[in-house]
Amino acid sequence: MQTVKARNLAGFLELEPEKQILFNELKRKVEKVFLKNGLTPMDTPILEYSDVLLAKAGGDTEKQIYRFSKGDTDMCMRFDLTVPFAKFCAIHQNELVFPFRRYQIGKVFRGERTQKGRLREFYQCDVDMITDSEPTIASDADCINILSQVYNEIKIPVVIKISNRKLLIGLFEELNLTEKSSEIMNILDKKNKMEEEKFVSELRTIICEENKLKTLILFMQTRNVNELSQFANTSEKFTEGIKEIQELFEILSYMNIQNKFVFDPSIIRGLDYYTGTVFETFFACLDEKSSIGGGGRYDNLASYYTDKKLSGVGFSVGLSRLFDLLDKNNLLEVKSKTTSVLNIIPLGNTLKQCFEISKAFRAYGISNEVLYFNKPFKAKLNYANKIGVPFMLVVGEDEVASQTYNLKEMNTGAIFEGDLKQIIEKIILWRKNENSRN
Amino acid sequence: MQTVKARNLAGFLELEPEKQILFNELKRKVEKVFLKNGLTPMDTPILEYSDVLLAKAGGDTEKQIYRFSKGDTDMCMRFDLTVPFAKFCAIHQNELVFPFRRYQIGKVFRGERTQKGRLREFYQCDVDMITDSEPTIASDADCINILSQVYNEIKIPVVIKISNRKLLIGLFEELNLTEKSSEIMNILDKKNKMEEEKFVSELRTIICEENKLKTLILFMQTRNVNELSQFANTSEKFTEGIKEIQELFEILSYMNIQNKFVFDPSIIRGLDYYTGTVFETFFACLDEKSSIGGGGRYDNLASYYTDKKLSGVGFSVGLSRLFDLLDKNNLLEVKSKTTSVLNIIPLGNTLKQCFEISKAFRAYGISNEVLYFNKPFKAKLNYANKIGVPFMLVVGEDEVASQTYNLKEMNTGAIFEGDLKQIIEKIILWRKNENSRN
Repeated sequence: MQTVKARNLAGFLELEPEKQILFNELKRKVEKVFLKNGLTPMDTPILEYSDVLLAKAGGDTEKQIYRFSKGDTDMCMRFDLTVPFAKFCAIHQNELVFPFRRYQIGKVFRGERTQKGRLREFYQCDVDMITDSEPTIASDADCINILSQVYNEIKIPVVIKISNRKLLIGLFEELNLTEKSSEIMNILDKKNKMEEEKFVSELRTIICEENKLKTLILFMQTRNVNELSQFANTSEKFTEGIKEIQELFEILSYMNIQNKFVFDPSIIRGLDYYTGTVFETFFACLDEKSSIGGGGRYDNLASYYTDKKLSGVGFSVGLSRLFDLLDKNNLLEVKSKTTSVLNIIPLGNTLKQCFEISKAFRAYGISNEVLYFNKPFKAKLNYANKIGVPFMLVVGEDEVASQTYNLKEMNTGAIFEGDLKQIIEKIILWRKNENSRN
Repeated sequence: MQTVKARNLAGFLELEPEKQILFNELKRKVEKVFLKNGLTPMDTPILEYSDVLLAKAGGDTEKQIYRFSKGDTDMCMRFDLTVPFAKFCAIHQNELVFPFRRYQIGKVFRGERTQKGRLREFYQCDVDMITDSEPTIASDADCINILSQVYNEIKIPVVIKISNRKLLIGLFEELNLTEKSSEIMNILDKKNKMEEEKFVSELRTIICEENKLKTLILFMQTRNVNELSQFANTSEKFTEGIKEIQELFEILSYMNIQNKFVFDPSIIRGLDYYTGTVFETFFACLDEKSSIGGGGRYDNLASYYTDKKLSGVGFSVGLSRLFDLLDKNNLLEVKSKTTSVLNIIPLGNTLKQCFEISKAFRAYGISNEVLYFNKPFKAKLNYANKIGVPFMLVVGEDEVASQTYNLKEMNTGAIFEGDLKQIIEKIILWRKNENSRN
């Protein structure tokens, strides 16, 4: 007797089989790239002490967080993977070998996200490379290279836009605008989401001197690293920024990166802990204004937990959001509702042989299931069609006697006749083609 | 400036790199088995409406749960993967194709677990096969077969003990003990954890008639399905139980299962929703009294959410607990702190070549990292040793000029000289051997 209405909380993704299969494929591909690059896996608890998780937070973060008490313990659900990473490094600082290059893929939780369609539970994929010695720009390039590989692997052409925080900080020094920097950064950060006119008029409310405003706007329009020196000549910070971004582009050129990467000083990244390189990725072919992954360099990861200075560079890809965007833009190729490559259908008294065949196929890594369930033969054919399995094998008593079987390719209806060995070879060949296609 | 002590909540696992790598390997192997058997992946939210998640719960479950409100929403963190599965089936009942064979691997949360060392956050791996038609025992065998494959894949010999709830329910009918059944089951469930004498005396407090007590104890000692008929001859339930367990063992014999499986009526499984086959796995070589995975058949999965009758069979493996047990019994072979197979060390001005070589290796799926960080050459050798990478390649200007490199196998110290193609072949061969060993 039904007593409760089954339903999900708003903002919590739950995918149907055909979508879940694609999501897992996406996740697997991202992880494959991380592993190829020798990143170390990490996993942290979803629940943490509130004082630990909120050591650095404030304002919006605290409002968004799921926080509660059980007994006399005040706890939070993690809202990102960076704070738990800082905590992890502080706890394990004596056992870890630095530089420590890690990845983490996991769910994070943010309640009270007011924008329509925003997720409250979503997967993030984070990469960070931290060191206890003098940082090197090669590490920034390493991150950007891995981020680019991720999008190559999932076949999404992107543009990676890169800047360096030191340029802007230096320019503010040069123009005597340091005191107003956070106000100005707030506007710059929204540049791509507003009309040029509105952008300029908002800036004008903060920057009174027209020549400074002009310099800033010209700087924001620059796309050529070699033209940067015209904007400042007294700020050491600015000069450092130029040197770093030049070195970064030099090293990136070594890496034979397959996505387009460009210098773009309008890349700000809201979070104020970035201190050097910053970067964001955008769809190359889709009209999506928001970035689909990005990161940057920070000076001191875990200062709230330890006096050990850990500087690093990292990025984050919002996997659930990315999946959602691909889905909305019809870029997901829904294939089937099953992970089986083959359905084996018993006909007559052949259950034993079906299970033997099933095992033989598994030994070759061919995912399969025996349709032993209590329904008529026709319903089994129906099942195979509905779940979209690529191949079907009917095992009747005649087939068992003759050791010759008919493999049906469901897509084309083509029949392939052969003994088990030949059928296994046929499917392995098909799989090879599928894999090279993906 | 350190302001907060970094620490984890008690009962929440956080593994260091060398252990996390092994845990992920374990998880990957379990998932590989599930996929080979054509199970469909599923993922559900970690947070749910409290009325949905607790529809069926009560008593201990409610006490253990993490429950809180945000705004006017009353929420819980999931405490298992079965209730979310039932909810999922109810929500998607019209789109799902039945039978639906799914797996789910994810974290579940149980607070206030008083026993020492019990985890409050842990991974579970669940498999369920549900149908909207008449169930078949082949499905129970399918589950047991997959469970056995899991332990084969991770090379842990186990014994799978199997019974059928109908036998016990039938025996209670036969002996007129039905009214006392839940009290008796409670004691039977603890049989393996207490002395025989205490077991009998506890039973005696509930069963007054000595002949009934004797019958029950003899039944519990039976290990031969063919001897069952002596215990009851009027209960249809009991007869059904015999028929089902015989059919189950018959089908299991078709499957060429590599772990030992035995009939054992002392397998009860506490949860009262099981109605037929029940099974549990135990280490074959370790003295561990508790089971390391088990499941059974249930009549009606989602009765609280829908009137559609969904019967099924499933099992659950506590992955974190299993890992913990393997660790405590020194059954984990700690290999290295890195997923890299190769460290590439630049010497002189060869960073460009190092990144090119890195990319060439990645193209063959050889995980590697370039040690570009700002430390002396010796510190880089030290790093490679400390993280336990299998191979190291020093790329100096001479090597670049001659296109001949020295690959060092770190374990043995052996040096292999060759061009890049030969070195790649060497590592691929090594990997092949490693894979066949695991």
